[in-house]
Amino acid sequence: MDPKDYCFSTQISHLALDIGGTLIKLVYFSPNGDNSQDGSIVVGNGCSVVKGRLCFAKFETRKIDDCLDFIRFNILQHSGVQHPNGTTRDKFPVKEKLGIVFDKEDEMHSLVSGVNFLLKTVPREAFTYLDGQKEFVQIDHNDLYPYLLVNIGSGVSMIKVDGDGKYERISGTSLGGGTFLGLGKLLTKCKSFDELLELSHQGNNRVIDMLVGDIYGGTDYSKIGLSSTAIASSFGKAISDGKELEDYQPEDVARSLLRMISNNIGQIAYLNALRFGLKRIFFGGFFIRGLEYTMDTISVAVHFWSRGEAKAMFLRHEGFLGALGAFTSYKDQSHSNDLKPHHQAVQRAVLKCSGDDSFRHTLVAANINDGEAIECSINLV
Amino acid sequence: MDPKDYCFSTQISHLALDIGGTLIKLVYFSPNGDNSQDGSIVVGNGCSVVKGRLCFAKFETRKIDDCLDFIRFNILQHSGVQHPNGTTRDKFPVKEKLGIVFDKEDEMHSLVSGVNFLLKTVPREAFTYLDGQKEFVQIDHNDLYPYLLVNIGSGVSMIKVDGDGKYERISGTSLGGGTFLGLGKLLTKCKSFDELLELSHQGNNRVIDMLVGDIYGGTDYSKIGLSSTAIASSFGKAISDGKELEDYQPEDVARSLLRMISNNIGQIAYLNALRFGLKRIFFGGFFIRGLEYTMDTISVAVHFWSRGEAKAMFLRHEGFLGALGAFTSYKDQSHSNDLKPHHQAVQRAVLKCSGDDSFRHTLVAANINDGEAIECSINLV
Repeated sequence: MDPKDYCFSTQISHLALDIGGTLIKLVYFSPNGDNSQDGSIVVGNGCSVVKGRLCFAKFETRKIDDCLDFIRFNILQHSGVQHPNGTTRDKFPVKEKLGIVFDKEDEMHSLVSGVNFLLKTVPREAFTYLDGQKEFVQIDHNDLYPYLLVNIGSGVSMIKVDGDGKYERISGTSLGGGTFLGLGKLLTKCKSFDELLELSHQGNNRVIDMLVGDIYGGTDYSKIGLSSTAIASSFGKAISDGKELEDYQPEDVARSLLRMISNNIGQIAYLNALRFGLKRIFFGGFFIRGLEYTMDTISVAVHFWSRGEAKAMFLRHEGFLGALGAFTSYKDQSHSNDLKPHHQAVQRAVLKCSGDDSFRHTLVAANINDGEAIECSINLV
Repeated sequence: MDPKDYCFSTQISHLALDIGGTLIKLVYFSPNGDNSQDGSIVVGNGCSVVKGRLCFAKFETRKIDDCLDFIRFNILQHSGVQHPNGTTRDKFPVKEKLGIVFDKEDEMHSLVSGVNFLLKTVPREAFTYLDGQKEFVQIDHNDLYPYLLVNIGSGVSMIKVDGDGKYERISGTSLGGGTFLGLGKLLTKCKSFDELLELSHQGNNRVIDMLVGDIYGGTDYSKIGLSSTAIASSFGKAISDGKELEDYQPEDVARSLLRMISNNIGQIAYLNALRFGLKRIFFGGFFIRGLEYTMDTISVAVHFWSRGEAKAMFLRHEGFLGALGAFTSYKDQSHSNDLKPHHQAVQRAVLKCSGDDSFRHTLVAANINDGEAIECSINLV
């Protein structure tokens, strides 16, 4: 893809990369045009304050060249190159291709930093979703910790967070977004995550899932609190239907798969929250994608298993936690013009990079519009 | 199938059925030939004691007629019909077809009764399995409770057991044997559970699973205790391989599936055991089938997540817990000749119904040789 084909070009002065098993997440700072000529305003104690926006983009990991082209194009077009940082891995020749030195940040540390940054500085970031109702949650900064962070990438990490930089990975599961897409591709011939999610919207999981009512002759097993519509066995009907894969609608298969994985993550998350007495569970990572059905399934699972005691919460910038954390927590010891986001200066995240919402589904290789931009400023010491 | 094709005919005097989503489990009592002419020995207080064996058979639920033929054939051939009991559901016309009245027992109650019966009366019933080592566990009757029972049928039930008849279903998961076979059939075109298990023996899950090392350039993520060979994302490699379902070996798919489901069950079981401080977890149900790889995966999961504090245990008669419990706990109030197993009289379970071990894999419809017979006697009051 010619980098000029991206929907807009922008000046990138700082960036962070989070290279995952499936997706590369990119957070970059784009200075406003209204800064002084060199892109910064000098303030009191010798600091330069650069106003601009934090922007978000994602690329498929197997198409890393698209990502590098995007960075190269936007950086080379402009002069404001500083010291990009990122969570990269050695096998990717990022350095050679871009001629930029990347510093590495720890993945879990970055995730936690990203969530803490969002919860503390970006209003209307966290929300609950239940019965079709999205409700923003105002987080009291003094009552934020401890919480459970469930990051759903290709796999799932569950991290107990006790403070800034105070965290422990307490659990996880290998049934994550990679399982959804991996199994989904094998079962439906879908080519992408978005396509598979789109399919699942239209499906009915009861076609393939064995429900409690299917076993108990249409009735509940009320003695143990199982309703007739509860799933007794995911994909259990495929045992006895006498059907082959081709006889099922791909939509129904995708739906069952999404339900199975969302429900399982919700359950394991709840069990871990219970273990440490954590009332709040934040779900992040690119699996959720703001999708109502996924959020509803996770919320219902947490609600069901905790009997209403624990709450599932979601984040508007869910997909960029690691990259955002790498960006915000980065402290470069070797350079004098240290990158230091000025958290207090972050304003309401009201701008979108582009008004075209259909973009997300039409350009798979480089969705540079997946997270809403956050207006902020950066202090250059 | 002609009932005369079954490998042997036997006299059935009492029986219990457990009709599950996938399999029908049958436990029946077959009196010995050396009893007195009417099949019983009259002892002290007017009781008749019938010596014989508890035998085990299973049938696919969709082939229920095979099961009914088996019962009809064996009961009709002989005169010792008493009052069979069982956990049946209304949708199956068992009563009409056999002309026998079945009494219903609660499923969870039966499961618990079955396990308690086995643990208290049958020596060398419970064992651990780790690193290829099977080790029988001698259970102290005074230190049996509480324990966690994980019954893996089409779905999975997790039951905290505090005593005889004292239990609570505390959790479960819809990812069970039905998911393994359902997804397995769709992905590999296998026709039966046995065939799918056989396939999984020969497979390598690393072909499709995304390992920690695949993400971190072949290295561990040691900071959080993840080795490079741990599965980061089940089926995660199918995302980026550019392969279609046909390009994968069915063996590898079956292996990944078995690993995913066994590991998930082990993890959720452990989290529930932890919640209630239960050190012993007994795994039952037809999913396990005494299969080493399955037991090893479950054991490793429990060991890994509990850091060695909890133990996975297995049962030799794992597949017949519900049917066995229905049989042993049955008390018919309306008849004077009440069925009452004489637990104390149960002897070592050393007999097998047939010496032909290959039978299990050659006769899918009716494996009447799946559990080892238990020598016992029944009191007829």
